[in-house]
Amino acid sequence: MTPSYRLHYAPDNASLVIRLALEEMQQPYETVLIDRRGGALDSPAYRSLNPQGLIPVLETPAGTLFETGAILLWLADRHAALLPMADSPDRGWTLKWLFFLSNTLHADLRMLFYPQKYIGDDLAQQDTLHRHLTARLTTHLSTLERAASDGGIWLAAEDPSILDLYLACLMRWMALYPMSRDRSWFDLADYPRLSAMLHRLEQRPATAAAQTAEGLGSAPFTAPVYANPPEGSAT
Amino acid sequence: MTPSYRLHYAPDNASLVIRLALEEMQQPYETVLIDRRGGALDSPAYRSLNPQGLIPVLETPAGTLFETGAILLWLADRHAALLPMADSPDRGWTLKWLFFLSNTLHADLRMLFYPQKYIGDDLAQQDTLHRHLTARLTTHLSTLERAASDGGIWLAAEDPSILDLYLACLMRWMALYPMSRDRSWFDLADYPRLSAMLHRLEQRPATAAAQTAEGLGSAPFTAPVYANPPEGSAT
Repeated sequence: MTPSYRLHYAPDNASLVIRLALEEMQQPYETVLIDRRGGALDSPAYRSLNPQGLIPVLETPAGTLFETGAILLWLADRHAALLPMADSPDRGWTLKWLFFLSNTLHADLRMLFYPQKYIGDDLAQQDTLHRHLTARLTTHLSTLERAASDGGIWLAAEDPSILDLYLACLMRWMALYPMSRDRSWFDLADYPRLSAMLHRLEQRPATAAAQTAEGLGSAPFTAPVYANPPEGSAT
Repeated sequence: MTPSYRLHYAPDNASLVIRLALEEMQQPYETVLIDRRGGALDSPAYRSLNPQGLIPVLETPAGTLFETGAILLWLADRHAALLPMADSPDRGWTLKWLFFLSNTLHADLRMLFYPQKYIGDDLAQQDTLHRHLTARLTTHLSTLERAASDGGIWLAAEDPSILDLYLACLMRWMALYPMSRDRSWFDLADYPRLSAMLHRLEQRPATAAAQTAEGLGSAPFTAPVYANPPEGSAT
């Protein structure tokens, strides 16, 4: 039987968040490797799936989805997993932090990784942007650390939520990228509750499956190393 | 009877999106004016509602919400309005564009309005950022114009969706802000389908109610002028 889902992915890219969610939900899926270096993101075929040419894309029986947050939410509702359902009092709490992850933490991180898209090629200007962004990201992580302690049951629970999966990947990438920059501004020890969440995630079979599929090493969230994937490349 | 909802707002701020949604849903609500100039966003009381100190905040019987996209989604599900329900085949389409509005269009616009938060006070560096952002925003609007024509029934329908309300406000602000900058990069005539959506919205009683409450003028989306609100100020 053909799986319902087809995930277009590159190793250790935002598609990893969706892979983790599909694994946690135990949903069968097939993957299509995106040849980033070969320019596949700009191909007409890929642009017909996502006009922005970004990763991830998930093909589903109900149409093609993109946007990490949207796919997480759609899958969680469809499979009644990893998210309080629409009639739960915790639903609003999870939604507000999901949008915060998407439009603030992830948006700022995207600028950190691709400064030329926002400020051009001048290195001094990129330095200025980098300095502001790392200060912002530090503030955002502190905000999340507090949210996890202020009754944040969906960011500090035994069982993971879509928030955990998303945040874990964002924190992994902060530790690793951009390769050309000092990354000592990010120290996991500053965020004990988030760190505990990352440790819990590393015990999950879903994480083990992602580690194997994308070559993520033995502690992909708490002591990340660059991916050594069986196929494709992260950049 | 006390209304279920309490909207913390400043005129012509992102709270306008939520006001439009509450009006469209015909939900009673009370408003609390935020004294931006008096520093209310940094007050401990406001930060206890939204740790980021941003507008909007909506107090609900199920707790305090923030993040424009999250509030829209939560209200739409709760009142079964302005959004395909979770079992609809159009749900995913709307979610992916809602996240796009939030983490790409709105995120880039936020940088256009508050460049000092990303690049500091150097005017030459702000100019560089501005130039890149206006090019990005133009691309985003073209992407949405195409999405509205490619079977985008939730961005080109007779009845509005949460996407329409959100996008209409973002486009209004592109025409008006930042006041200190040339804004000729934005021309509504370049986006005929989006323009038609804005014209339709201006015929809605919900828009009329917002116009009165926040002093938005006679054509708040297609020929916007600066707000002249009965109380408070936009900046």
